Amino acid sequence: MNEVLNINEVTRNDYFKESHGKTVVEMTLKAALELGDNLFYPIFEEMDRKVPLFEKDNVVVHDKVKEIMKECGEGGWIAASLPVQYGGFQMPRMLHLSCRFILSAANYSAGVFPNLTTGAARLIVKFGNDWMKKTYLPKMVKGQWQGTMALTEPEAGSSLADLKTTAELDSSGNFYNISGQKIFISAGDHDGVKNIVHMLLAKIPGSPPGVKGISLFLVPKLRVNEEGNLESNDVITAEVYHKLGYRGCPITKLNFGENNNCRGYLVGEANKGLSHMFQLVNESRISVGIGSAAIASAAYHAALEYTQQRKQGRPLGEKNPLNPPVEIIEHLDIKRMLLYQKSIIEGSLSLLLYGAKCADLEEVSNGADKERWKYLLEILTPIFKAYPSEKGIICVSNALQCFGGYGYCEDFPVEQLYRDIRIHPLHEGTTGIQALDLLGRKVSYKNGIAFQIFCEEVEKSIETALSFNELKDFSKDLQAGLDRLKLVTRELLEQAVSKQAKAWIADATLYLEMFGTVAIAWQWLLQGPAIISGLKKSNKKEFNFFQGKLFALMFFFKYELNNIYSIERRLLNEDDLLISLKKEYLN
Amino acid sequence: MNEVLNINEVTRNDYFKESHGKTVVEMTLKAALELGDNLFYPIFEEMDRKVPLFEKDNVVVHDKVKEIMKECGEGGWIAASLPVQYGGFQMPRMLHLSCRFILSAANYSAGVFPNLTTGAARLIVKFGNDWMKKTYLPKMVKGQWQGTMALTEPEAGSSLADLKTTAELDSSGNFYNISGQKIFISAGDHDGVKNIVHMLLAKIPGSPPGVKGISLFLVPKLRVNEEGNLESNDVITAEVYHKLGYRGCPITKLNFGENNNCRGYLVGEANKGLSHMFQLVNESRISVGIGSAAIASAAYHAALEYTQQRKQGRPLGEKNPLNPPVEIIEHLDIKRMLLYQKSIIEGSLSLLLYGAKCADLEEVSNGADKERWKYLLEILTPIFKAYPSEKGIICVSNALQCFGGYGYCEDFPVEQLYRDIRIHPLHEGTTGIQALDLLGRKVSYKNGIAFQIFCEEVEKSIETALSFNELKDFSKDLQAGLDRLKLVTRELLEQAVSKQAKAWIADATLYLEMFGTVAIAWQWLLQGPAIISGLKKSNKKEFNFFQGKLFALMFFFKYELNNIYSIERRLLNEDDLLISLKKEYLN
Repeated sequence: MNEVLNINEVTRNDYFKESHGKTVVEMTLKAALELGDNLFYPIFEEMDRKVPLFEKDNVVVHDKVKEIMKECGEGGWIAASLPVQYGGFQMPRMLHLSCRFILSAANYSAGVFPNLTTGAARLIVKFGNDWMKKTYLPKMVKGQWQGTMALTEPEAGSSLADLKTTAELDSSGNFYNISGQKIFISAGDHDGVKNIVHMLLAKIPGSPPGVKGISLFLVPKLRVNEEGNLESNDVITAEVYHKLGYRGCPITKLNFGENNNCRGYLVGEANKGLSHMFQLVNESRISVGIGSAAIASAAYHAALEYTQQRKQGRPLGEKNPLNPPVEIIEHLDIKRMLLYQKSIIEGSLSLLLYGAKCADLEEVSNGADKERWKYLLEILTPIFKAYPSEKGIICVSNALQCFGGYGYCEDFPVEQLYRDIRIHPLHEGTTGIQALDLLGRKVSYKNGIAFQIFCEEVEKSIETALSFNELKDFSKDLQAGLDRLKLVTRELLEQAVSKQAKAWIADATLYLEMFGTVAIAWQWLLQGPAIISGLKKSNKKEFNFFQGKLFALMFFFKYELNNIYSIERRLLNEDDLLISLKKEYLN
Repeated sequence: MNEVLNINEVTRNDYFKESHGKTVVEMTLKAALELGDNLFYPIFEEMDRKVPLFEKDNVVVHDKVKEIMKECGEGGWIAASLPVQYGGFQMPRMLHLSCRFILSAANYSAGVFPNLTTGAARLIVKFGNDWMKKTYLPKMVKGQWQGTMALTEPEAGSSLADLKTTAELDSSGNFYNISGQKIFISAGDHDGVKNIVHMLLAKIPGSPPGVKGISLFLVPKLRVNEEGNLESNDVITAEVYHKLGYRGCPITKLNFGENNNCRGYLVGEANKGLSHMFQLVNESRISVGIGSAAIASAAYHAALEYTQQRKQGRPLGEKNPLNPPVEIIEHLDIKRMLLYQKSIIEGSLSLLLYGAKCADLEEVSNGADKERWKYLLEILTPIFKAYPSEKGIICVSNALQCFGGYGYCEDFPVEQLYRDIRIHPLHEGTTGIQALDLLGRKVSYKNGIAFQIFCEEVEKSIETALSFNELKDFSKDLQAGLDRLKLVTRELLEQAVSKQAKAWIADATLYLEMFGTVAIAWQWLLQGPAIISGLKKSNKKEFNFFQGKLFALMFFFKYELNNIYSIERRLLNEDDLLISLKKEYLN
């Protein structure tokens, strides 16, 4: 944040001034670390083993969830990024996401409770009315009430156009009557808080079909009546899912309005619900990336520790069994697996914080500058979500592999992390959905302006790096990679225009992988000058730190960036293999 | 087995005559399918949820394990591949492994109990003495007693040279006194059988250090005394591991001779234990491949079914939300994921059965032929083990992804399969160990004869396929891929000779992946002529079957084979990145 992404560029703006200065940043990170160490991590394993119970209409979660919500509420973590008038301190997202990275590495499930509340609160701040801000928001930011996002339904997951939940204006005109079922709602009900506030998508009868007829509602589990007391709002928990990982946080199926007594309050404009909600969805997508990188980072550090304790085998070529065995970190394949993890995780984290910077600068800029940050943020969002989550799985698998058979056992945390991280390519839009968003929309909209801005930014970094002798080769490699990405993009978009067939988009997921790989290589090169400078002036401990960064950079270029050439071979092939495949052939 | 691998070439040999003929083969497969459907699959989920309990020195497994061992014993499944005089019917490995594939797909954990018993029994048949064959073998092949392989120790996993378990000849000269601890012993103790027979590696005091001083012993949990009764043999279960998956089968930590009363019986020659054991280890490595392909296959078929039931979204370009949603199998990214799975799984299965054929023909051949099959089997063994297990993980992950959020929930079998398959790159030699075996030994030993034979066999298949117009392009692609593999192999082996540095072997795992990819492409091309012929003469149902095969072949060539070009770029780079990485840089 200091040497590479220059957080000062953000905090020197009046809006973010509370976070200005190295001391504030360091204190904030340290506070997150302490919270993680003292409250989140101690129950990391317990929350997995003692899963949420669904008994007598009550979802019982780990008893520390109460404390977590209280601490995050009173300590200002939930409100941090909100405007001052709502109890926040306008923390830049760059710093906020860094803290989230730390907390998610400590215990991802635990962090979801406050994080979702922040997301819901931000929606209310932006689109809610004064009554909502007065009645619901304060309890949420204090961690007394949980916030959620309630989108998915049994027949509408990726395809939100098919939502069936309805919201009918009550004859009083004061609220809408909500009726429908939502599934996969994280933290949708639990006893760690007194109330749950759902940000829910539903259709007002008579509104246009599809996504243009979706509206956003605030739907509490317990509603505040005219006397200011809480009363039931006819939101019934039907099921708590049992799942592979991410077990500390209950994912629920909820029935709204079974007894025709569920009130919802319109947030923002009618029929604009999807676009309102997408503020939260886009924020969640970058959060998923952070969560992925964080989980993978926890696994990496566990592997790094283990491989320096475990002794086994001898160096290559050393055949004398009487010589003592070496730490397994000395084996080249272990080094390869560790460096793979480091290069993916730290490259991803860099990209994600870069994305946070875009969001921060968009917030405080105007005119062309604002547009530029906005486009950059938009085109990178599918990468934020998909790259760290897909590659993060492989990272954790590599970390597990470093443990040998022990990695498969519950004695070490990696098996849990391996289960936990697998949620990430699924929720907040699957990888396939991200790929369609990127290739089908983001790279081409408004004449490809977002893609053009992305390329310009990459080329700026190349230009800067070229003045460092040590980075010349990598600069050229990245330019070559970017040129391939441009070529592939142009080819595919030309096919999109000229052809009836849909072959151009059939391999969107591979295109996403290629794009993501170039983007991470860029982030490493962006760090290059700081690494080279750091190596020249640093003391021994810092020298090792910068050497580690340099090796991760080199690894990414020499191992990962290579992969785009294979992907390119596939993407430039115009056959219609997937299109002509009939399902009968597989049965 | 009929059209491509021609099992008749095996069964026309006198030794395998009991399995000769299409009818016998089909009946055998059908019997395996029935066993899987009726006994294995019904408890697939239960065995995972109700894990083995370790209570009062007793390891309690699912109560159906008894029945499974009984059925597999009395039904001849354990003995199937053994010689007739030991109750077997000399079933070819090709057929035997096909049955194992079916049973492992139904319930991998359940299959381990009989399979390990078969492996131990085969060791006794080959290296044991008459007393062992009379006293221990019959109960094992009947499924009354469990067989195991006991190699790993706390300080000796990948590095068997460091075994510490000792076997001291008793003053009576009748047996050895065993003392030591073994860990990660599958089915090492359980109440589904009356006794456990461990095939255990230990060192006789005074024997040479390292692997040259390892001997193989038969060590029962209960020994048969002179009166023919069972008595305790001082084998104590210290722990049952709790693990990510593969939960139906207990993996145990065992203490041998804590009370100086554990007897072991030398199997084969003293100090030849490792080479004896490697018969079983090599068989287990191909079994692990089969298990991986089987688990991945179960996940694939679950995904294939689900994606034809689940409706969501609309075809690309179709924007009218009033039109009904389509089955998700119609989405191109789902098709891509399914075809990925099919091409990896069926390609792997083909290679594994080809390997079984090598073993079968080695068994019944003589002279140069025998050598040829032996070398082919040896060089392919690391691929049998590593390729299906590594790629199988990605297959199951893709299957899970096809389910969307439901894939993460216990409502469907894929989350369990995702956990189960992760054991495979770990046990029976990690992927890193396989890679060192391949590049560090198998491709170069005896002047590279095994590699040469492999190339010849691939080129034979190319030659045959070239006469089919439809296969010309693929034949050329495979030849190009093989040429790259030859080039890379030559380069690396030259570096190995000429350089001090170990850079040539640093990326052995990538080399293994490249080799494996070429090998699977070969297997698809080997199937090519049968596919093309099948398409020309078949009825509608068969037409679809062969079309499915053709698409899987095309997919593998167009998506997977491409990857070798990226790997090649890395392997031909002579930098010493991993070698010069110091662990301090990562700390």
